[in-house]
Amino acid sequence: MSVAAFLLSLIVIFGAAKIFGEIAERIGQPAVLGEMAGGIAVGVSGLHLVDPHAPVLHLLSELGVVLLLFLIGLGTDINRLIAAGPAAGAVAVTGVVLPFAFGFGVARLLGVAVPVAIFLGAALTATSVGITARVLSDLGHLHSDESQIILGAAVIDDILGLILLTVAGAIAAGEAVTLFGTAKVIVIAIGFVVVAIAAGSMLAPFLIRLVAKLRVSKALFFGALMFALTLAWCAQAAGSALIIGAFAAGLVLARTEKGADIEHETHDIAQFFVPIFFVLVGAAVDLRQLNPFDPAARKYLVIGMLLTLVGIGGKLIAGYAAPRRFRRIVIGVGMIPRGEVGLIFAQIGITAGLLSAGLYSSVALMVMLTTFITPPLLRLLLPGGRTKNEVSTLQSVVTESLSDAEPRS
Amino acid sequence: MSVAAFLLSLIVIFGAAKIFGEIAERIGQPAVLGEMAGGIAVGVSGLHLVDPHAPVLHLLSELGVVLLLFLIGLGTDINRLIAAGPAAGAVAVTGVVLPFAFGFGVARLLGVAVPVAIFLGAALTATSVGITARVLSDLGHLHSDESQIILGAAVIDDILGLILLTVAGAIAAGEAVTLFGTAKVIVIAIGFVVVAIAAGSMLAPFLIRLVAKLRVSKALFFGALMFALTLAWCAQAAGSALIIGAFAAGLVLARTEKGADIEHETHDIAQFFVPIFFVLVGAAVDLRQLNPFDPAARKYLVIGMLLTLVGIGGKLIAGYAAPRRFRRIVIGVGMIPRGEVGLIFAQIGITAGLLSAGLYSSVALMVMLTTFITPPLLRLLLPGGRTKNEVSTLQSVVTESLSDAEPRS
Repeated sequence: MSVAAFLLSLIVIFGAAKIFGEIAERIGQPAVLGEMAGGIAVGVSGLHLVDPHAPVLHLLSELGVVLLLFLIGLGTDINRLIAAGPAAGAVAVTGVVLPFAFGFGVARLLGVAVPVAIFLGAALTATSVGITARVLSDLGHLHSDESQIILGAAVIDDILGLILLTVAGAIAAGEAVTLFGTAKVIVIAIGFVVVAIAAGSMLAPFLIRLVAKLRVSKALFFGALMFALTLAWCAQAAGSALIIGAFAAGLVLARTEKGADIEHETHDIAQFFVPIFFVLVGAAVDLRQLNPFDPAARKYLVIGMLLTLVGIGGKLIAGYAAPRRFRRIVIGVGMIPRGEVGLIFAQIGITAGLLSAGLYSSVALMVMLTTFITPPLLRLLLPGGRTKNEVSTLQSVVTESLSDAEPRS
Repeated sequence: MSVAAFLLSLIVIFGAAKIFGEIAERIGQPAVLGEMAGGIAVGVSGLHLVDPHAPVLHLLSELGVVLLLFLIGLGTDINRLIAAGPAAGAVAVTGVVLPFAFGFGVARLLGVAVPVAIFLGAALTATSVGITARVLSDLGHLHSDESQIILGAAVIDDILGLILLTVAGAIAAGEAVTLFGTAKVIVIAIGFVVVAIAAGSMLAPFLIRLVAKLRVSKALFFGALMFALTLAWCAQAAGSALIIGAFAAGLVLARTEKGADIEHETHDIAQFFVPIFFVLVGAAVDLRQLNPFDPAARKYLVIGMLLTLVGIGGKLIAGYAAPRRFRRIVIGVGMIPRGEVGLIFAQIGITAGLLSAGLYSSVALMVMLTTFITPPLLRLLLPGGRTKNEVSTLQSVVTESLSDAEPRS
């Protein structure tokens, strides 16, 4: 790719992200849905202006994913998880087990092979903490008890989902689906997170003290970035996934005294790379694969719709794993959107050769539909929905951390 | 390149940039010299950890160059240029004509072909406004009369140098060195800047008003970025150079009410991409080509040393084009460093196939030596050199704009 063609791709990607992101925000949807829609408009289903498989764009979007998971880790407060406690844990585990079982079952019933069915089930387990947090914040409900449970459960979902993803990835790499093999992958995935957090927590204070002494520009940010990239690389080398390493790096650095500063600076850079990921996800969606009038494609539309239904059902039921004193329907609805983590799963699936273009489009449809219905449902359920400006003081660093923040200037 | 290999390259690049940048700052040199030295350490002359010709790294470094020129344009105050006026103009023109003539002459005497000699001459014309401004600021002299002339002349140098570069590039593309052909290229280059500034100045207020109405995140930054990338692309399509378009976009947006905000946000992103460029420049330097004990390589060492000498001489004499009432030796010394623009020339030369690896290394040597000697010489000439912290209030947005700024946190 020439430099001029590269610049043109960036113009198209950012143009699509911002134009469709703007439209999404104006109709009350999260910007990330707009970015995906923008990708569909300029990608293989639309104007063909962006090649989602161009190597340089693929690498930049992967860097966006790594930065996004690093940012989610940085925004995760382990203490809040512990405070939300058993209720969040029950919701999270139910919200992983049911959608996974339902998704796996539906896929098997429709004749999908076991490893692919595991993957489809895994893609249903994620909860997009970013999208949910943003909507709750917009409605002025971010600090309610229900929201704390939703956010806590979403984080646990991410961790469990990442482990499932690693299992599915190992199966994709040709490992037999044995109890021992699966156990090994789970031990490696959990083991990596535990070792990374333990070793990282010991190293991080030294890193923070070291960069504080440096005179070179942005020493803190680049120190943190190299820490995250190194952990991501180690995670992959250890047989886990890049994004697990990036997430673990965020968890570790969030607990240091400079956690907020690192999150702030990472956010600035992530806003450049993350939209590339979402636009490319949309650009790779082939709508012809979902054409209801094409008998060959109808199958993928049906799979996508069924995955959406069981995905919604599984998370709604998960809400009822919380004690009675909470508004459990709010919790269930809040867990519905799959967002970025579901998309990351889909992308890894297509890269690993597990998902066909048709199944990829099914998963993308499920992610878009679950993300799409959540904001209006939550608005319906929660009283006193206010406009964004009126609740801007309530917007916490959690929502700030996910690419939907207002320009700071 | 796999994602893991890509992340590893970034770790090495940022690690080299920051470690050697830190060393450079501690011995009183600009961080950019450290970044180049870091590149030499990890590149083809050192540890071979970074491949400067990997396509994705090349594209990212080119994006860094585009952002850097956009930033230089954003930091250029046309009014200041006019105020510094005739004195700056005289210094600039002398500082372009003499080094170009000297460089061309030396190259021809040593048997270099005419197009390549033009290129080598052109590489001598630039003045690094960033490095000079940073040193003057460190010494508390940024607002002296001499500094105003240096900064004004450096900007004019950049514009003249970019035009010369376009001429050299057209020649490299196979156009014959005719008076008509050269005139055509000059007319296109100047014409593009004039048209871009005229059309851009009319469009920019609309763009600023449009993005002010948007709700999507970072609308101002992405609007400005797309404006810059589009002008860069148009410049290349019109037969000029990418960086001329980016520079023109910066000039235009600097004059809008949001110029300072755009510069601030561009600065954040540029700090990610610009070090990639400088490290890759260093990584591509092949020190064996400058080995004095190798008769075949000695030639390039000699060319590099001679280019350095005439480059220094030409700029020193240019200082004496200013009126007697100024300290002309200070102006001459301030014009010496070639820095980023000289490096951009060298890189375009090697990409266009004009510069051999040997001549590239000669130019890189010249850039490093001219940049290296300026800070100590200025410290010697200017009284009351203070440490950086004592003059931090004097650091203007000009120095802030060039990657050597302190971390903001």
